[in-house]
Amino acid sequence: MSNTSNELRLDVDQAFLGLVDEAPGRYYFSAAPHLCRPDRMLYGGTAIAAAFAATERLTGRPSIWQTTQLIGTTEVGARIDVAVEVLAPGYRTSQVQVTGSVDGRTIFVSLGAAVTPNPDGHDGQIEEFIDVPPPEECPQAAFVEPANGWFVGLEGRVALDEDDLRNTRIWTRFEDGQPWTAARLAYVADVIPIGVERGLRDLGVGLSLDNTLRVGEIRQTDWVLLDVRAQQAHGGYCHGSVHLWTRDGHLLGTGSQTAKMTRVDFESLCRVPSPTGE
Amino acid sequence: MSNTSNELRLDVDQAFLGLVDEAPGRYYFSAAPHLCRPDRMLYGGTAIAAAFAATERLTGRPSIWQTTQLIGTTEVGARIDVAVEVLAPGYRTSQVQVTGSVDGRTIFVSLGAAVTPNPDGHDGQIEEFIDVPPPEECPQAAFVEPANGWFVGLEGRVALDEDDLRNTRIWTRFEDGQPWTAARLAYVADVIPIGVERGLRDLGVGLSLDNTLRVGEIRQTDWVLLDVRAQQAHGGYCHGSVHLWTRDGHLLGTGSQTAKMTRVDFESLCRVPSPTGE
Repeated sequence: MSNTSNELRLDVDQAFLGLVDEAPGRYYFSAAPHLCRPDRMLYGGTAIAAAFAATERLTGRPSIWQTTQLIGTTEVGARIDVAVEVLAPGYRTSQVQVTGSVDGRTIFVSLGAAVTPNPDGHDGQIEEFIDVPPPEECPQAAFVEPANGWFVGLEGRVALDEDDLRNTRIWTRFEDGQPWTAARLAYVADVIPIGVERGLRDLGVGLSLDNTLRVGEIRQTDWVLLDVRAQQAHGGYCHGSVHLWTRDGHLLGTGSQTAKMTRVDFESLCRVPSPTGE
Repeated sequence: MSNTSNELRLDVDQAFLGLVDEAPGRYYFSAAPHLCRPDRMLYGGTAIAAAFAATERLTGRPSIWQTTQLIGTTEVGARIDVAVEVLAPGYRTSQVQVTGSVDGRTIFVSLGAAVTPNPDGHDGQIEEFIDVPPPEECPQAAFVEPANGWFVGLEGRVALDEDDLRNTRIWTRFEDGQPWTAARLAYVADVIPIGVERGLRDLGVGLSLDNTLRVGEIRQTDWVLLDVRAQQAHGGYCHGSVHLWTRDGHLLGTGSQTAKMTRVDFESLCRVPSPTGE
């Protein structure tokens, strides 16, 4: 499939996030249910998605990198103001800082870049695709029951090898069938703590300190493979990365993340009645 | 070897960078020759090192993550002011923003965190060490002749497999024999574009847009392995990661980076007269 034009990409992100233009570099959106976690607080993946979308909207260039620091959160329904400042405008590169706030209180800060790719510049994929079954051969992922819409628009297929705890692999796609954008990739890439828990056999939930995504050429694909590579945890804080692949092995980008881990009683959390009432 | 105490770590970094205390959260240092590139401009690895050191100095906690966006640079000898702001002070986690400036002009911005590790928290290394010869069996690395001191205090040993262009591995150590700190690891981790050029067989130099480092438990080691994993380049911009290992395979941390690549005429650059004049 062909690449997505700048204009289409901006429209897709605007529809996904509900972003409203106020002035150049000033936007706002509402913390809609699909942008929040099951506890009805803003999802970290939404913050980095908004940073990508707002950066591209102001600069008119694809954003190839954002690191979004999550300082606070807010509830479903809140209005989130997003301000983009170009710290260094360049011939090919716009270096930006993005601030998200609620009633003047900063909830995230993002550093990033948007660029005009040089057709004669360095180009090529160095990392090799991994050996993974296609989504059609993988069982459906049991995402947490979406109490308030989170993940309601996403499908998942579990592609992981049960004996390989180091690598956690999940195919995902949006049910809306809209194209992949950097913002939508960033939204689904906020999964690294899941791989760390699994790698350590130590259940818990991760509170992200940041979400980072570095994006290459965005080629369209139906399913995206989230190839989580858990690295380590120390003193309750974990690090890891996630490679995002198209179905046929093009590397769309790579995320990384640091999170604070908290142990939770999953047994009671997961005691969801089955359809047969068992 | 045992871990390094907080106090010793602060002293080592202060000596390495020449950091001077002005007020809590306000520091400055001079762009000494060993902190600059061969072209006499500030080295990106120095900026992230200063962000780690200043964060730890203010908070008194080890910093486990910094993402440093490089907006501008400055020349050898300039005074660089470093200001640390705690955006979110927590019981265990201080989330910070660090700004580096020269005469009031911002040259870098860093987002990061410093934490008090929880002894009962999630802990463990998930990534496995790679198969690599020890530094004693590796040839000396031919770093660029240090015109002005850059890398003058560093030794290198090339541990890479010539047939494996995807992975570039270099052992390094400081000649001063001082302990490794997050700041000193960040300084040596600014090497990812070298792996990308090699992976693409397309020579060039990288202008870093950022340096990111996520740090685990810092155990002491003489040599540190820089295990560079080049990911991709598109339109002249590249992404990759670097794992930092102790000699015996403890994962000290993982860096990642986005850089703008520029082709250079290496043949003329490298035409350095040999000792015999040939």
